[in-house]
Amino acid sequence: MTATGAFITSLLTSFAVFCGLLAAFAVLSKLKVNYNIYYPSRMISGLGPTGFAKKQNPLEWMKEAIMTSEEELVRIAGLDATIYLNFFVAVLEIFAYSSLFCIPVLIPIAAKSHHNEEAYRLDPNQTYAGFDNLAMGNVEEGTTKLWAFLVGTYWVSFVTYYVLAKHYKKMIHLRGKEQAYEKAAPQQFTCLVRDIPPVPKGMTRLEQVNSFFKKIHPDTYETCMVVTNIKRLLKIWLKYEAAKKNLEHAEAVCEEPKSTATREVTRPKHKLYFFGLIGPEVDSINFYREKVRELGRLVEVEQQRTLKEEQLGAAFIFFNNRRAAAEASQAVHAPYAMQWQVFPAPEPREVVWQNLAIPVYQRMVRQGVVYCMVFMTVLFYMIPIALISSFTSLENLIRVLPFLKVVVNYPPINTVLQAYLPQLALLVFMNLLPSLLMLLSRLEGIPSQSHLVRAASGKYFYFIVFNVFLGVTLFGTVFSSIAGFKELRNSKNFSVSSVVTLFGSRLPPVAAYFITYVALQNFIGYGLELSRVVPLAIYHLKRRFLIKTQKELDAAWAPPAFTYHTLVPTDILILMISMAYAVIAPLILVFALLYFAIGYVVLRNQALKVYVPAFESGGRMWPHIHTRIVVALFVGQITMIGYFGIKKFPYAVLVILLPLITIIFATMCRINYYPSFRVTSLAIAVEDVKESPPLRKIIEVYTPSCLLNVETICEDSDKFEDAQSSIGSRSMSRSNSVVQTCTEEFHAL
Amino acid sequence: MTATGAFITSLLTSFAVFCGLLAAFAVLSKLKVNYNIYYPSRMISGLGPTGFAKKQNPLEWMKEAIMTSEEELVRIAGLDATIYLNFFVAVLEIFAYSSLFCIPVLIPIAAKSHHNEEAYRLDPNQTYAGFDNLAMGNVEEGTTKLWAFLVGTYWVSFVTYYVLAKHYKKMIHLRGKEQAYEKAAPQQFTCLVRDIPPVPKGMTRLEQVNSFFKKIHPDTYETCMVVTNIKRLLKIWLKYEAAKKNLEHAEAVCEEPKSTATREVTRPKHKLYFFGLIGPEVDSINFYREKVRELGRLVEVEQQRTLKEEQLGAAFIFFNNRRAAAEASQAVHAPYAMQWQVFPAPEPREVVWQNLAIPVYQRMVRQGVVYCMVFMTVLFYMIPIALISSFTSLENLIRVLPFLKVVVNYPPINTVLQAYLPQLALLVFMNLLPSLLMLLSRLEGIPSQSHLVRAASGKYFYFIVFNVFLGVTLFGTVFSSIAGFKELRNSKNFSVSSVVTLFGSRLPPVAAYFITYVALQNFIGYGLELSRVVPLAIYHLKRRFLIKTQKELDAAWAPPAFTYHTLVPTDILILMISMAYAVIAPLILVFALLYFAIGYVVLRNQALKVYVPAFESGGRMWPHIHTRIVVALFVGQITMIGYFGIKKFPYAVLVILLPLITIIFATMCRINYYPSFRVTSLAIAVEDVKESPPLRKIIEVYTPSCLLNVETICEDSDKFEDAQSSIGSRSMSRSNSVVQTCTEEFHAL
Repeated sequence: MTATGAFITSLLTSFAVFCGLLAAFAVLSKLKVNYNIYYPSRMISGLGPTGFAKKQNPLEWMKEAIMTSEEELVRIAGLDATIYLNFFVAVLEIFAYSSLFCIPVLIPIAAKSHHNEEAYRLDPNQTYAGFDNLAMGNVEEGTTKLWAFLVGTYWVSFVTYYVLAKHYKKMIHLRGKEQAYEKAAPQQFTCLVRDIPPVPKGMTRLEQVNSFFKKIHPDTYETCMVVTNIKRLLKIWLKYEAAKKNLEHAEAVCEEPKSTATREVTRPKHKLYFFGLIGPEVDSINFYREKVRELGRLVEVEQQRTLKEEQLGAAFIFFNNRRAAAEASQAVHAPYAMQWQVFPAPEPREVVWQNLAIPVYQRMVRQGVVYCMVFMTVLFYMIPIALISSFTSLENLIRVLPFLKVVVNYPPINTVLQAYLPQLALLVFMNLLPSLLMLLSRLEGIPSQSHLVRAASGKYFYFIVFNVFLGVTLFGTVFSSIAGFKELRNSKNFSVSSVVTLFGSRLPPVAAYFITYVALQNFIGYGLELSRVVPLAIYHLKRRFLIKTQKELDAAWAPPAFTYHTLVPTDILILMISMAYAVIAPLILVFALLYFAIGYVVLRNQALKVYVPAFESGGRMWPHIHTRIVVALFVGQITMIGYFGIKKFPYAVLVILLPLITIIFATMCRINYYPSFRVTSLAIAVEDVKESPPLRKIIEVYTPSCLLNVETICEDSDKFEDAQSSIGSRSMSRSNSVVQTCTEEFHAL
Repeated sequence: MTATGAFITSLLTSFAVFCGLLAAFAVLSKLKVNYNIYYPSRMISGLGPTGFAKKQNPLEWMKEAIMTSEEELVRIAGLDATIYLNFFVAVLEIFAYSSLFCIPVLIPIAAKSHHNEEAYRLDPNQTYAGFDNLAMGNVEEGTTKLWAFLVGTYWVSFVTYYVLAKHYKKMIHLRGKEQAYEKAAPQQFTCLVRDIPPVPKGMTRLEQVNSFFKKIHPDTYETCMVVTNIKRLLKIWLKYEAAKKNLEHAEAVCEEPKSTATREVTRPKHKLYFFGLIGPEVDSINFYREKVRELGRLVEVEQQRTLKEEQLGAAFIFFNNRRAAAEASQAVHAPYAMQWQVFPAPEPREVVWQNLAIPVYQRMVRQGVVYCMVFMTVLFYMIPIALISSFTSLENLIRVLPFLKVVVNYPPINTVLQAYLPQLALLVFMNLLPSLLMLLSRLEGIPSQSHLVRAASGKYFYFIVFNVFLGVTLFGTVFSSIAGFKELRNSKNFSVSSVVTLFGSRLPPVAAYFITYVALQNFIGYGLELSRVVPLAIYHLKRRFLIKTQKELDAAWAPPAFTYHTLVPTDILILMISMAYAVIAPLILVFALLYFAIGYVVLRNQALKVYVPAFESGGRMWPHIHTRIVVALFVGQITMIGYFGIKKFPYAVLVILLPLITIIFATMCRINYYPSFRVTSLAIAVEDVKESPPLRKIIEVYTPSCLLNVETICEDSDKFEDAQSSIGSRSMSRSNSVVQTCTEEFHAL
């Protein structure tokens, strides 16, 4: 257990680090050379840095971040970021209202009690930090004082219900406003169709889809785009793109002004194999130019083949108005509901092409397998780490790379490596985990990036809840204390109620640990986030040593997007810890408020000036977050039941009502609010559209980029157009006339 | 435990009763005077009795029942009955396929084992009937023979999955055919809208609904009918209808030819109060004629008031084609999904008017309260029975009705009453239960009769499963044996796994009891059903003593509808028992096959000749049944896990997979098949319509009958029409011109 002294030390240390990073930000963000790192989002839209860059006040950025209106935030950062930031507001409200009761009422009651003192008199081995005396643990068992904590539990619960319901309505309002926006987006006219049955004889896939939907939506259906298997094409396409990039780089190197020597001499050269280290030397420009031409031709051939032969059982269908698309996306189309499944189309940028055509049964099997794998990962995540560490043990390292032997056998280095290699393995694994979970989610057959992010976020949440929260509290203490061991050994007594009691009894002693955890997350995490020292360093290093072309420079400071699948689970973990302790150790509320307040300001700054969304899901992250907040509340309530039991409080039975109310609340939200997020409601879809994209444009954005035109000259363009028109309206940017024909054809139908 | 002898005796007895009832049916159904009882469905459609009435063969009715094609069955008995009978086919298939393995493989294995013999040698107190030796209980513990039973468990499970999936598809096909039928039904053009928000200022409810839907469905929306609160009107209306009936009866009595006396003398008279026993005597015809006139006027006044002032937040909306209605019923309409909720309209006959306008939050609260009440009823159903019995104890009876004292105090009568009064109370309660559950379901706020029936059926199922299946097996044996008591007392050991073990260990000894139960249900229940001796007796008694008018005669033999809410749970209970024992005591399969085979023939006969459906839900009972079959399978698998544990079979761990597979199967069915039952798929809705009801007709059938015209002369009909036209198209049969105006008005919009 962390003593009060150690706690304050770690708190002060991280606060100091935070202040340092804050100062670094205030200084660095005012240098013109760093604008690309601190205002990339504004640089891209041509706005330049904000007023803060010129002003003296080092906290001006906070004012800018907070004062920007919500409309502007939606316009700049998108709905997803706005809803994510509103989640912070909701949590701040929950904790602020909770504090109103818990801090002025519960802390004084705990402070005036003497349970810890007595326990210390009876058994001086038990240590209690000063901090512990402000928590419920200090209240004597079975006294009427516990009524206050019971009321506190109810207070926190009802505050949470109230704030969550209020914010759900607000989120629905925000989403509705975005969906009813007068400038219509392509996805509002589009539906995704999956599980199309096999093509009947004498029909093409295109005819099949068109005839089916033309019959059902005679007035509103426009045309469709059949999804193709682009796996083989993509391979060639990526090589082609890489070659193009290399060519540009080589040309830029060639044109670089050198003080001495003629131009001919500076023509770049490279060796053919193994990262340009081995093999015959060639002239880079000529080599890549030839390669681009060659690959371009290959891409075109493969494009033709793909369009003709690789059509799959999925399609995007396009309607002539928003209402029709919104309505179609909600209806069961086929007599057998598992065929012709129609979904709202994901935004074009977030389509996961490989997954669209996976049949429904396969999706289910994949889901089952992935869930099992995640379950195993969550339960036994130590095993891969142990494997990695054993693989990265010094002996193995030396066997693989014998030349390291001399260095490694030097005693001081040896000691350090022995100690840190396993830690390193853990660190690497923990950093690989989000990507691994994204990969697993992708294997499930999810059709859109935003859904992938939500799926990965859910998995990561389980992982950190299990390993950090439960692992540290329950198992950590159980295995470290002999009493816990005894309890587990006597496994006949192992039942649901005993777990609840154990859960309650083991939590309070680790309160201090978690408050430290929250504080650390708080100061250091957000300090790094705001100051962006790591991207800054990388940017300047790259600029100095690697970058030749403007494209490469742009790529070096290209602003990232929010990585919700790691951010959201961490935030909810903090929320969960704070909720579990809100009544037991109300002081945690202060730290939680600090964490979310700093987070709100910092992330609002980042959303406005740094991050640029990679895609827009229409705020569908909110129901995901909402559910997890409710789960956090539920876990907190279960904890309280256990802890009241420990305190021998007979009226603890009244707390049992709360988890039930939480379940009812969750059900109510799912039934009443969730449909507004799952689909576009018709009342919103019929709002006036002032500006809508032309059909050609919509089809174009729903074409994977590798099926769009290749820049090199194509000799047999006639043949190509034939292929295109035969499968409908595809790769439109290359020949607009084809699209025209196509769409007219379907209008005429 | 029932010994083999007792078992055979009870089997033979009930078989004899069954044969007697069968003979009674064969004789009675051929008498012309009974045609109305044995062929009421055919009499109503003017077909008269079937060929069986003329033929000598006493089993001809079976042939008729089985040979009728499915199309004809749908046409005569409706889709609901067809799907209910198909459920019998599905169950027969499951048990037939299960028998293929269980009977020829498992019974010989059990018969050749000697576990019971050994147990008897060790403890002669344990009794084993001959029947028990054919069950798994006779197999020695931990032997390889148990592999056969393990395979049996898998066999039964996979057979069930296969048959259920196959039949789900068949049911979807049947339902689709009915929905795509070329003669369109009114409900196919209609949606039910609930939770309409409060009327904005300066608008009527009608304008509000029309403007909302006109904007969303500009081309397909026709008009709406706002639901009104008819509670007050209904009271007067029912009095009015009763008075009309009494008047007709009195007139018929008056016109009855009497051998002596003049007509004037036979004019019926009655006294005014307390069932015509007390008060001044009046001439019945004059009295009722005056009453009908008076009430008729009251009804009209109330109709006007209702239409104007009692409009509620629910409406039926009408579309001009099936597709539009089907599509609208599946879409979220309002920005906040809990407003303007649109559902597929129930069939006109099954609308529960009082429940339509209950707001969504109230529905949820009601549902919660009702579930709690049902839970309590299921758990503590002995308490109301005890209350009733204490109330109906002799002492109370004497206190209430002192004149019974002399009779009751006569010793022999006293003894009999003392013994049977509690039994009587149980009987009364068990018979009241389905109605009570229907009432509870109605309180939930369910908008349609068929849904009510499903809800009540679900509740009844829990009840009988808990009280009959679990009550008899688990609790019955636990409480009757000292060992069970001990186990329960030592409640520290009470955990999930111990319950499963207990469950498995207590089941087999009661196998014989359940086989008797099945056999009894089988023979006596279906014998009574087929022979209809009770309705026959009532009919003839009524005809002799009460009936005066043709209307009353028709009412006396009016054919009932299937009472699915009592039939389905009973069938599924039998199914559940048989499934739990299919591997443990495979002989039960023979009885189960008999039960469902006889049930199939008898009920098919009844569906074709007797029952007339009160409404048609489009076969929505099937998903309900399907889920409960899956639950039965799940319970069976859990039982097997427990029983394998008892038998100390280490590979029993393999059975744990099965419940998981069952859960996956259930999820798969819910995702893939259920949507086809929840809504009408668009591909079906766009099928060609050859004959569709005119809008006026559709509106008329969706008007509650008490809002339709009153037969007496109405003096101020102008005022009335004003009221009608102001609220739209309502009570149409009374003035068609109003409807015309109304519908034209909306066409013009």
